[in-house]
Amino acid sequence: MRRLQLGMVGGGEGAFIGEVHRIAARLDGHFDLVAGAFSSDAERAHQSARDLGVEAARSYADFREMAKAEAARAGGIDAVSIVTPNHLHGEIAMAFLEAGIAVICDKPMTATLEQAEALTAVAKRTKTPFFLTHNYTGYPMVRQARDMIAQGALGALRLIDVAYLQDWLTRPTDPAHKQASWRINPDLSGGGAIGDIGSHAYNLLRFVTGLRPETVSAQLRSFVPGRAVDDDVRATLAFAGETYGQLWASQVAVGNENNLSLKIYGEAAALEWHQERPDQLIYTEFGAPRQILTRGGAGANAAARAVTRVPNGHPEGYLEAFATLYAEAASVLRGEACETVVGIEDGLEGMRFIDACQTSSRQGGAAVTFAASD
Amino acid sequence: MRRLQLGMVGGGEGAFIGEVHRIAARLDGHFDLVAGAFSSDAERAHQSARDLGVEAARSYADFREMAKAEAARAGGIDAVSIVTPNHLHGEIAMAFLEAGIAVICDKPMTATLEQAEALTAVAKRTKTPFFLTHNYTGYPMVRQARDMIAQGALGALRLIDVAYLQDWLTRPTDPAHKQASWRINPDLSGGGAIGDIGSHAYNLLRFVTGLRPETVSAQLRSFVPGRAVDDDVRATLAFAGETYGQLWASQVAVGNENNLSLKIYGEAAALEWHQERPDQLIYTEFGAPRQILTRGGAGANAAARAVTRVPNGHPEGYLEAFATLYAEAASVLRGEACETVVGIEDGLEGMRFIDACQTSSRQGGAAVTFAASD
Amino acid sequence: MRRLQLGMVGGGEGAFIGEVHRIAARLDGHFDLVAGAFSSDAERAHQSARDLGVEAARSYADFREMAKAEAARAGGIDAVSIVTPNHLHGEIAMAFLEAGIAVICDKPMTATLEQAEALTAVAKRTKTPFFLTHNYTGYPMVRQARDMIAQGALGALRLIDVAYLQDWLTRPTDPAHKQASWRINPDLSGGGAIGDIGSHAYNLLRFVTGLRPETVSAQLRSFVPGRAVDDDVRATLAFAGETYGQLWASQVAVGNENNLSLKIYGEAAALEWHQERPDQLIYTEFGAPRQILTRGGAGANAAARAVTRVPNGHPEGYLEAFATLYAEAASVLRGEACETVVGIEDGLEGMRFIDACQTSSRQGGAAVTFAASD
Amino acid sequence: MRRLQLGMVGGGEGAFIGEVHRIAARLDGHFDLVAGAFSSDAERAHQSARDLGVEAARSYADFREMAKAEAARAGGIDAVSIVTPNHLHGEIAMAFLEAGIAVICDKPMTATLEQAEALTAVAKRTKTPFFLTHNYTGYPMVRQARDMIAQGALGALRLIDVAYLQDWLTRPTDPAHKQASWRINPDLSGGGAIGDIGSHAYNLLRFVTGLRPETVSAQLRSFVPGRAVDDDVRATLAFAGETYGQLWASQVAVGNENNLSLKIYGEAAALEWHQERPDQLIYTEFGAPRQILTRGGAGANAAARAVTRVPNGHPEGYLEAFATLYAEAASVLRGEACETVVGIEDGLEGMRFIDACQTSSRQGGAAVTFAASD
Repeated sequence: MRRLQLGMVGGGEGAFIGEVHRIAARLDGHFDLVAGAFSSDAERAHQSARDLGVEAARSYADFREMAKAEAARAGGIDAVSIVTPNHLHGEIAMAFLEAGIAVICDKPMTATLEQAEALTAVAKRTKTPFFLTHNYTGYPMVRQARDMIAQGALGALRLIDVAYLQDWLTRPTDPAHKQASWRINPDLSGGGAIGDIGSHAYNLLRFVTGLRPETVSAQLRSFVPGRAVDDDVRATLAFAGETYGQLWASQVAVGNENNLSLKIYGEAAALEWHQERPDQLIYTEFGAPRQILTRGGAGANAAARAVTRVPNGHPEGYLEAFATLYAEAASVLRGEACETVVGIEDGLEGMRFIDACQTSSRQGGAAVTFAASD
Repeated sequence: MRRLQLGMVGGGEGAFIGEVHRIAARLDGHFDLVAGAFSSDAERAHQSARDLGVEAARSYADFREMAKAEAARAGGIDAVSIVTPNHLHGEIAMAFLEAGIAVICDKPMTATLEQAEALTAVAKRTKTPFFLTHNYTGYPMVRQARDMIAQGALGALRLIDVAYLQDWLTRPTDPAHKQASWRINPDLSGGGAIGDIGSHAYNLLRFVTGLRPETVSAQLRSFVPGRAVDDDVRATLAFAGETYGQLWASQVAVGNENNLSLKIYGEAAALEWHQERPDQLIYTEFGAPRQILTRGGAGANAAARAVTRVPNGHPEGYLEAFATLYAEAASVLRGEACETVVGIEDGLEGMRFIDACQTSSRQGGAAVTFAASD
Repeated sequence: MRRLQLGMVGGGEGAFIGEVHRIAARLDGHFDLVAGAFSSDAERAHQSARDLGVEAARSYADFREMAKAEAARAGGIDAVSIVTPNHLHGEIAMAFLEAGIAVICDKPMTATLEQAEALTAVAKRTKTPFFLTHNYTGYPMVRQARDMIAQGALGALRLIDVAYLQDWLTRPTDPAHKQASWRINPDLSGGGAIGDIGSHAYNLLRFVTGLRPETVSAQLRSFVPGRAVDDDVRATLAFAGETYGQLWASQVAVGNENNLSLKIYGEAAALEWHQERPDQLIYTEFGAPRQILTRGGAGANAAARAVTRVPNGHPEGYLEAFATLYAEAASVLRGEACETVVGIEDGLEGMRFIDACQTSSRQGGAAVTFAASD
Repeated sequence: MRRLQLGMVGGGEGAFIGEVHRIAARLDGHFDLVAGAFSSDAERAHQSARDLGVEAARSYADFREMAKAEAARAGGIDAVSIVTPNHLHGEIAMAFLEAGIAVICDKPMTATLEQAEALTAVAKRTKTPFFLTHNYTGYPMVRQARDMIAQGALGALRLIDVAYLQDWLTRPTDPAHKQASWRINPDLSGGGAIGDIGSHAYNLLRFVTGLRPETVSAQLRSFVPGRAVDDDVRATLAFAGETYGQLWASQVAVGNENNLSLKIYGEAAALEWHQERPDQLIYTEFGAPRQILTRGGAGANAAARAVTRVPNGHPEGYLEAFATLYAEAASVLRGEACETVVGIEDGLEGMRFIDACQTSSRQGGAAVTFAASD
């Protein structure tokens, strides 16, 4: 099985998510990092390349140059990972897609809906693979939940509750905090909590249930004085039939580290999953005791087992879930089908969700049509 | 310390809440049950009286007769507990208040807001004590939370999340299930989930934070075909300043037994409490590790210790919390002040909250003014 | 159903366990406290009687006088609760048994094995009921565990692990701390951790499994300088066949409040129970997901339901478990059979267990025969 | 930073631990797998090499040949990972150490104490690095615990409780289960539960506390009929001063997946860690509320942060902890000092611990001197 050649844009020294992508890419041994434009500052870019063992000839300071050079090169990269701040995702992805190079892009797909639509058009036209790293979809027990729902274990769904709570933006942001500072600049991030974590929450709900809301009502709030983006969002989702969802994303909920949870209540049974204890899925059939299903344990189904590396009781975590996305991207790049991949359409839908929430909030929380024609 | 004489209306054989009140009344030794109109059916009333050790002379089949006779009697009852279905609370309470007998009434106070207003007028005119048994206010760690917030431990409050989840009405109700059947008859209950458990959730939030919302937006839903009352309610509460609340009460959330929880996020710290593990209060100062405060343990404050009976690590539960309400009612009846009592004004406010939610829901979830002049 | 007349010896002002017994006695309405020798100091005894509403004529300063007077009296007490320090249990119990008055005695039964044997002889001779308040046997999910094991749900038992961890004696004891001071005086307590909590742990294991060990090996330790009794005990129990138990009781295990737990592993399944979360019983069949059985919930069996007062999700606690012992004593006093009562033989066995542990520990942890002839 | 060249012995198709080592080796990017003797069957060895991307010239069927060839080769491997069944560890390690090639060896170090002593002699003579992958030492909160204890946060230690519970060997072993079958053959494994998981438990206790017991008493048991090795072990450890430890390792404790836990009680405070929730460390100062310290969170110390890859709330797991051992081995191979490495002396001590437990158990659990001269 040929190892794939990976390039990267962004992710120079001090970047959090770039290192996460690099670990995820190599964890299962599918990719070698061989090229990069790790910074738009040439000196920093080349220093990062040296640190990362990328040869000088394939260290670029300009992503457009990199796209052209790698496309032209015999044995050029099979895919590029884009790990820059959000507002740059769109143009970088376009450059690589136009060059016929597959893209693995951090979320949200772009900073604006317009960019997302343009990017989608390019991806469709060029027929080049695009992968969006909504990494929480890589957890085995998320896969199990998705599969159980698809097979009807819960009966008709009634209530879906997804929450993504953090507290790291509780106080006014220190301008020297690199991770925080671009996220709270609306031009660079495209939104605050809604884009940074609300988009993950929506994607998780969407991935597990398969449902798309007909209408969305949302309230975006900013609790910290002077903050230009939202740091808390509440949204109500109405699905076809009698199914309702509630989404809450907050970055000012003191005492929460990365508390993403999903609770789904059906007519016949319920599921509950918590990202901070990802190897468990709590399953209750109505009228029966609560069961703790574990990754790799007695209750694990094939969907969970397919993305499990170590025996039950040996915790897997965030990096393994992320690595599963890279492993599945590798499968697709090698020509296999993979129905669990999060792709360009999902990215566009995520951007439309962010936009719908922002629109609803500007209208005082009015219900906004989201998927009328579905 | 004189033991007080208690009467009861309702609570005959097979009633759940009547027995709870009786245990709560005697647990701390403040009350003796000496009179009752346990049923409107004379035979059943007298049989229950015999079973409960109430002498025949003080067993009544009619509550009005009981109110008159006990008021006239030397050594008549000091208070009456009303434990009938909701729609009867109002007229029974009025009869006793008019007779000058203190009332301990199960919640919600009445089945309609009009009744509640009329009852409040009577209580004020007669200056007779009225106690509403919002029993969750009796938990020691709820008292601790209230006190910590009053003392500013959390800083300005930002987000308040209260949820009361059950699953016992997930399926269509068996008409033979006595507890269920009157609760889902809107004429007898005054509402479904909103009245039965939403009123508890609101009262808990109100009791702990001391805040009253300026506006309320709510969606009442009924998931079970043919059900005439709501079995799920979501409400958004906007308080003065930048404080927002979210209330969710559901009786169709599979896998939840009596899962009442309260989470309060302030600028400086957060608290989290779960009724099913009531002896713990989770407290996190921003930037510090999560702490588990326990009833009677190292972190317990005076407010918690005041209503604690046994050492830490020996669980107290629902009946002890309920008994604390009876103990505090006894204090008031003996002439002491008690600021933690839930009284007629709280009951009226609870009914106004139910009404506001129902009004908002009829208007598609529009924001309804709740406490404009406060 | 006639209410029973209860007397009490000990339990005057400031006593913890006396108040617990009084609440337990009245919680279910079976007993009225009508007589007492609440202290050996006459003045304090009569003051406590007044505080507790016991009439002066039935307030005694001497337990022997009380036993005689109540036995002679028409309508004398049906039973006496003994809630003094341990070393007094024996002679008090004998006085009442000799007077033909049933005894409800706090554990351990006596301070020495000799006393226990003498008391047992008296109980057998007088045929007067004797109840020992090993209150943890009153928890519904403990009853459920016992019943499941009796019905073979676990298959042959292999490993039994019982631990009772506290931390309140971590530091040298303040002589002014009344609860602590008599417990650490070997003459008054008959032992330290082994008597105070080790006896509970043994009884719980015995009650739930029905098994009696053939040999016992134990190490008693005292970590606090100058302490005359053990504050930590580890014992290994060997049962017939291939079943082994481990018992750990400690009063210096920092961070533990009243952390009594029981874990039982069989060939086919396992059970786990924690006193600080008593409404849950964790049940795992080998090869199946872990299930959370709850008091009154879907998985609750008849044994649990029989001693449950409120619906599932409404926590019951320590006082309710204690009250169940009083309710069952009331049943026996009214002439009914009750197989879950902890009686004189269990008390004697508990004292023999304490003695065996002390003997083994003096011999460096050698295996001591416990129940060879069983 | 030069990437290191890694070889592997064992770990061919179907091996669990070989794949774990490979992931751990590449996760942080320090090693490339370039050579291997993946099986003693030549055909299977070469097939595995092909699957793993190892070039044919460096695929060996004989580990001695591999050691010689790689030692002779310019740019030969920097280290070899040994992931065979236990009884082969010793001779393979010797061959590589003699060839001057550093060894990264799975635990236990050898199948017998004699082999371990011989291997230690070779390692000392050749001065070639030897690393033993006691992977649980790689967890950040284990590092934090070690550091807190070294700094005296707990005061003098009193009680140490380590348990490693699994249930996968509850039933007679299917001979076709490769993982199980060699583990229960005493000639191949050197022991049952004591060697497979008891050695991990001991090492964890040793690593965190820094203490070595003076005496060891143990009972090894085998519950499954016909099983030739122990599947359950209980050991009591006596340390200098008044410090005692308890170790329990079981492979028949139904309902446990990989439940390794460590609880340490000192005079001043206590720590509790659970491998199945590795990102938390529970810390209680006597007389203060329980605190939940989290990896990367507010309470995390430098020792934890040094081996943390992603922000708090994003779970790290078993593979990350394992990778930390490879990262630290890489540091040493590059000439840096690293005091957290588990080396040849620790491996020898682990083998002596296993031997002491087996000796004690054969003597009915007698205390065996372990570290008299320390």
